[in-house]
Amino acid sequence: MRLATRENGKPDGELVVISADGSRCLAAAPQLPSLLAAMEDWKAAEPTLAMLAQRLEQGEGETLDPVQLLAPMPRTWQWLDGSAFQNHADLMQIALGHDPIENDKPLMYQGMSHRFLGPTEDVPLPSTDHGIDFEGEFGVIVDHVPMGTTPAEAMKHIKLIVQINDWSLRTIAPVEMKTGFGWVQAKPACSMAPFAITPEHLGAGWKDGRVCLDLEIDWNGKWFGRANGREMSVGFHDLVAHAAYTRDLAAGTIIGSGTVSNANYAEVGSSCISEVRAIEMIRDKGPASTSFMTYGDKVRMEGRGVDGNSPFGAIEQQVVDGSAR
Amino acid sequence: MRLATRENGKPDGELVVISADGSRCLAAAPQLPSLLAAMEDWKAAEPTLAMLAQRLEQGEGETLDPVQLLAPMPRTWQWLDGSAFQNHADLMQIALGHDPIENDKPLMYQGMSHRFLGPTEDVPLPSTDHGIDFEGEFGVIVDHVPMGTTPAEAMKHIKLIVQINDWSLRTIAPVEMKTGFGWVQAKPACSMAPFAITPEHLGAGWKDGRVCLDLEIDWNGKWFGRANGREMSVGFHDLVAHAAYTRDLAAGTIIGSGTVSNANYAEVGSSCISEVRAIEMIRDKGPASTSFMTYGDKVRMEGRGVDGNSPFGAIEQQVVDGSAR
Repeated sequence: MRLATRENGKPDGELVVISADGSRCLAAAPQLPSLLAAMEDWKAAEPTLAMLAQRLEQGEGETLDPVQLLAPMPRTWQWLDGSAFQNHADLMQIALGHDPIENDKPLMYQGMSHRFLGPTEDVPLPSTDHGIDFEGEFGVIVDHVPMGTTPAEAMKHIKLIVQINDWSLRTIAPVEMKTGFGWVQAKPACSMAPFAITPEHLGAGWKDGRVCLDLEIDWNGKWFGRANGREMSVGFHDLVAHAAYTRDLAAGTIIGSGTVSNANYAEVGSSCISEVRAIEMIRDKGPASTSFMTYGDKVRMEGRGVDGNSPFGAIEQQVVDGSAR
Repeated sequence: MRLATRENGKPDGELVVISADGSRCLAAAPQLPSLLAAMEDWKAAEPTLAMLAQRLEQGEGETLDPVQLLAPMPRTWQWLDGSAFQNHADLMQIALGHDPIENDKPLMYQGMSHRFLGPTEDVPLPSTDHGIDFEGEFGVIVDHVPMGTTPAEAMKHIKLIVQINDWSLRTIAPVEMKTGFGWVQAKPACSMAPFAITPEHLGAGWKDGRVCLDLEIDWNGKWFGRANGREMSVGFHDLVAHAAYTRDLAAGTIIGSGTVSNANYAEVGSSCISEVRAIEMIRDKGPASTSFMTYGDKVRMEGRGVDGNSPFGAIEQQVVDGSAR
């Protein structure tokens, strides 16, 4: 099952179910006005949505207008982002110049969740001095997760999978990191690809709590990376259990994988500029040669299955000057 | 003006306006069902709420039942907590054993905002091995703050003031801090005192963006601290502007001061156990003698004006075993 959210003038948008071929949709309102509302009572929402999906396959529904699509969840109560690709963590340690992180638990920070930009929305940022960078990753959306949930139980709470661009400001990031308080200014609103999908919809692409898809990333129309999501050192179920160790997770909580990164980065490339810069620093034993983004720069991200399908659709957006708003 | 939220079976509760003497209330529904809804259109909400306050002073309203009160904002889109008392930061550096934080910006982390416990609600936590601690502080609630807002402009966005207990798990905190990612497991749900008040209601107690009230804290019925909120090294307007540097702040965002702490701590005491332990370590040149909390422990917190008034009401709650839920 694939879900999306259509612009309707309200902050949560309107939930729609998408046909298998991605061409048509059916609104879930009035029963399920938004994806957040559906997550809050997923047990009741799921059969309703499945019935709409069935009606779509019988030919019902209206033509989907991709321009109207917001992030599948334009806002939610909680966004917790992991850093579950060890290869990325190792390279970033060099890029940011910090000591190795000694920690036997998954790395995770709490980011802003009151706004997720849509897949084609402009990204307004206040300065090109901040080291503007994208971070391609996958994420999961859970229903209510009680405190103390185990990884095995956590797997059952993973209801939807999404594809995310976690925008990062790299000159601010290491300064905030050194305080130990985590990132606030270095992490503006993330973006999301148009479709949130059920684990079943991914088929063999969902394995051991990992999204085993190549994340195709192009920067200003040029090949940038094709790293695969399968190399997470812990699965999404482990990240969910980690997050729920001392708190309940609200229904609609989104948990991110962190930047997708593979050990064979020389062949498959990277999912953020900072990692490429780290690779350059190591290779050249000197400063990085690739610069961060500037206004007008475009990034395109699309998770691609082995059969060539595109379950999440594409993020395709540009950075714009947000200083004069 | 004083506002509170009454239990009505819904996650956001029911917004009520409180009479000046705190004895009666009037519901703001159906126009303004919740405080979060009111914050999202504060310009329209404020005169409506002011009219209800006026009707209360004319004798209208029903008797307020304090047992029914939730946190004034039981959930919101964003909770950003500062650490604006330099005295506390200096002492905590010793308690947590980390290097001095070199940073010319305010310290701030993003915490969980999908649940704020009510003033008398039990606090379920999974283990007494985690170093259970309270942190008494003040906070502000803003309406929508655009990215790039200056401190002077930010002052105008501060619509309500609240009193908060930022629950902290002190054996987890330094481990998470060393990762640079900030706190997730070390920061479970916070609690809030019953009343959210307008800056005008504080009168002389609101000065230069600071809450100039003593925060009376008793632990298990014993005097613990009476530190005053006036010693913030930056004001709340500075914290709001810091938070809005690279992001819009959603209406209803809560910004915290961090643990209230004064230079004359020897006389006024502290607002968290960890600070007391730090003082002991410095004084005794050895381990701390005060232990953290255990199940059944109670904490009471009440901001007190020079005239003896209690604008926020009291937080009075106990820690309970949350491992078996």
